[in-house]
Amino acid sequence: MNIREEAGKMKLDAPVMASSSLQMRNAALEAVRDALIAGKDEIFAANARDMAAAEDAGISGAIKKRLKFDEGKMRDVLAGLDELIRLPDPLGKTSLARELDEGLKLYRVSVPIGVIGVIFEARPDALVQISSLCIKSGNCAILKGGRETAETNRTLFRIIYGAAAGAGLPKGCLLQAELHNEIDELLSCDRDVDLLIPRGSNQFVQYIMNHTKIPVMGHADGVCHIYVDRAADREASIPVILDAKTQYPAACNAVETILIDRRAADDFLPALAEAFARAKVAMRGTKEASERIVRLGYDCVEMAEEEFHKEYLDLTVSIKLVSGVREAVEHINRFGSHHTDSILTEDDEAAEYFMQMVDSAGVYRNCSTRFADGYRYGFGAEVGISTGKLHARGPVGLEGLVTYKYKLYGEGHIVGDYAAGRRQFHFRDL
Amino acid sequence: MNIREEAGKMKLDAPVMASSSLQMRNAALEAVRDALIAGKDEIFAANARDMAAAEDAGISGAIKKRLKFDEGKMRDVLAGLDELIRLPDPLGKTSLARELDEGLKLYRVSVPIGVIGVIFEARPDALVQISSLCIKSGNCAILKGGRETAETNRTLFRIIYGAAAGAGLPKGCLLQAELHNEIDELLSCDRDVDLLIPRGSNQFVQYIMNHTKIPVMGHADGVCHIYVDRAADREASIPVILDAKTQYPAACNAVETILIDRRAADDFLPALAEAFARAKVAMRGTKEASERIVRLGYDCVEMAEEEFHKEYLDLTVSIKLVSGVREAVEHINRFGSHHTDSILTEDDEAAEYFMQMVDSAGVYRNCSTRFADGYRYGFGAEVGISTGKLHARGPVGLEGLVTYKYKLYGEGHIVGDYAAGRRQFHFRDL
Repeated sequence: MNIREEAGKMKLDAPVMASSSLQMRNAALEAVRDALIAGKDEIFAANARDMAAAEDAGISGAIKKRLKFDEGKMRDVLAGLDELIRLPDPLGKTSLARELDEGLKLYRVSVPIGVIGVIFEARPDALVQISSLCIKSGNCAILKGGRETAETNRTLFRIIYGAAAGAGLPKGCLLQAELHNEIDELLSCDRDVDLLIPRGSNQFVQYIMNHTKIPVMGHADGVCHIYVDRAADREASIPVILDAKTQYPAACNAVETILIDRRAADDFLPALAEAFARAKVAMRGTKEASERIVRLGYDCVEMAEEEFHKEYLDLTVSIKLVSGVREAVEHINRFGSHHTDSILTEDDEAAEYFMQMVDSAGVYRNCSTRFADGYRYGFGAEVGISTGKLHARGPVGLEGLVTYKYKLYGEGHIVGDYAAGRRQFHFRDL
Repeated sequence: MNIREEAGKMKLDAPVMASSSLQMRNAALEAVRDALIAGKDEIFAANARDMAAAEDAGISGAIKKRLKFDEGKMRDVLAGLDELIRLPDPLGKTSLARELDEGLKLYRVSVPIGVIGVIFEARPDALVQISSLCIKSGNCAILKGGRETAETNRTLFRIIYGAAAGAGLPKGCLLQAELHNEIDELLSCDRDVDLLIPRGSNQFVQYIMNHTKIPVMGHADGVCHIYVDRAADREASIPVILDAKTQYPAACNAVETILIDRRAADDFLPALAEAFARAKVAMRGTKEASERIVRLGYDCVEMAEEEFHKEYLDLTVSIKLVSGVREAVEHINRFGSHHTDSILTEDDEAAEYFMQMVDSAGVYRNCSTRFADGYRYGFGAEVGISTGKLHARGPVGLEGLVTYKYKLYGEGHIVGDYAAGRRQFHFRDL
């Protein structure tokens, strides 16, 4: 398959997809849901072949868990589809309506972005989730999944595409890329692909960002911080830190670095070190922090300053003592990835300083960084989390897949009349 | 000057700039206005030196007009400042307020983008306009103007910077880059510069877009179309087409291509060709169009299909006959630059098809493409016009210079409680 050529055809179908009614898009999602239910055995059989191949290839247990597409995953995927069908139409929303002059009316209306390329790791449920988000938002999508679930992806795609096209969506609504070299081809389609959403490891996302002119939405790093202020409540704080580190350490919103106000260290360090040791979290720290923790009788490796840029994605944590909220903010803005950072404090002034000055998509007070998630924000569906500052920031819902266009209706209006002063704009919001 | 180092310092000042009050930012703008008035003679003297150098270098009259900074430009610049001071604060606006659960409150609040690099052609008034837009929106800005007005820029910058810093804005609020090689240095600052806004020729903007990892807002091409439908009103249409082509041909929103429904050509072409000939617009067209126009007794050069991608920026126009609105839309989506396109018709159905299917920032009915402009849309100040689909599309006002952050306030909330089903989100909008 020639991805460039196919992307060019999709671009021509994109306005047709964009103008499909909510009714048709929802009917397509219902058809997808029904087809997945009907094709269950086929999907599970394909997944069994992938799992067997993974077994032969000696793939680790943690990854195999993600490859698996079983009754549980199917249930989640169907529930997600039902929820998505219930969400209001993200298209055709008017965010500005203004009469510029008699008979000259301007409207700003939400429209799909167009053609979206999605490249994701080996999680078959992601294929269903992302293709359905694109259908709901009227976008055409090119999907490239991980090769470890090639069989499952192929079966899922065939079922989803058949249902969507059968419901009346244009031929070019969805396309599957299967070969690894097609990723580079996709990255070169900056004329026809409007947005790329990569979902995978840091290195993978970084590669995508560095090798395309297409705008990329997502995040490479999730270096999140918790700052324990002098006025932190110790009782309440230890569970928050443990949750942020251990509840799901492989997530991008798990905490990597704990910054502690030096004046709170005497009170805090013994309880924190004990809690980390009990939860089997490996501690690393600056010379000062590691020496104090070792003196308390726990292991703590001394680390270099540059290592504070590191995202562990496992049960390891970096620890540093700071002189107060100002130094904490400076550290976070310098070493963080502008994802999500939290302050633990009972001091309103310190909290407001932190929330204002930390330059991240999420700034939290007295809660776990793990809340940074579209579902937990109540967005229903999640496209991903963006650490970029343009378009969409933080957890991105359906609204991240739409843009807008300006529609101007006139009656033969010309600019010359206004330039010559024969007419004046009156700017009246409708 | 080491731009990278300076950009790094600005990045640290950006949160301070972001938290400056509206009162302080407006006071800074007032100080800038007063300082410009007080420094008028100095500015005009510097501009006279630039104009003399331009004279010596044999720079053309059209460009010299842009270099000139005189009483008229000063009046416009001061009026713009007054208007900007009156605009409401773009910062601190809450676009979402939601209680996720008892005591866990989420807010989405507008904040500045951070550090913005602006590279503009030789127009001293652009320096004033852009630096004041950045001040109003709480952004730090690195400004690089054209070398043809180096003297004027240096004087303007010294006056503006002195007034802004004197009013209490942080040291790193504004920085001027003066050397041409500093552009490439600026393009490499993707760690510290959040957004680039280039304003200049196609080739210049294209160069910027191709040589940086920093997001770029703007447009390289303005290939705008007018489609004359079968049901167009001839009387009303000719003035619209002339306005779009001749009112200011060097503007990006001037029309380049006229598409005409073949069924309207007999009625339309004689009047159009005559109007263009009278306005000294050089006509070019497909074989079919040019043959017909030549037969009517006017000059018309036959052009190749690929040339429909061309932006003339002068009194030249491309003409093509099409079979109807569908072919017109296909041509526009293929050859256009997604800037602004207009349909002339009395047929509601054809108009709605066009407005829906043309994939451009602006889709117009029965009016000139020249209306695509922040001032004419009633945005007050204009940052530029974006043909990208992400973040901001079309004419961009102050809101294009802001993003948002999520603030989450908890009372020791942890995700583990929700994962284990001990607590449930209730998502109540506040």
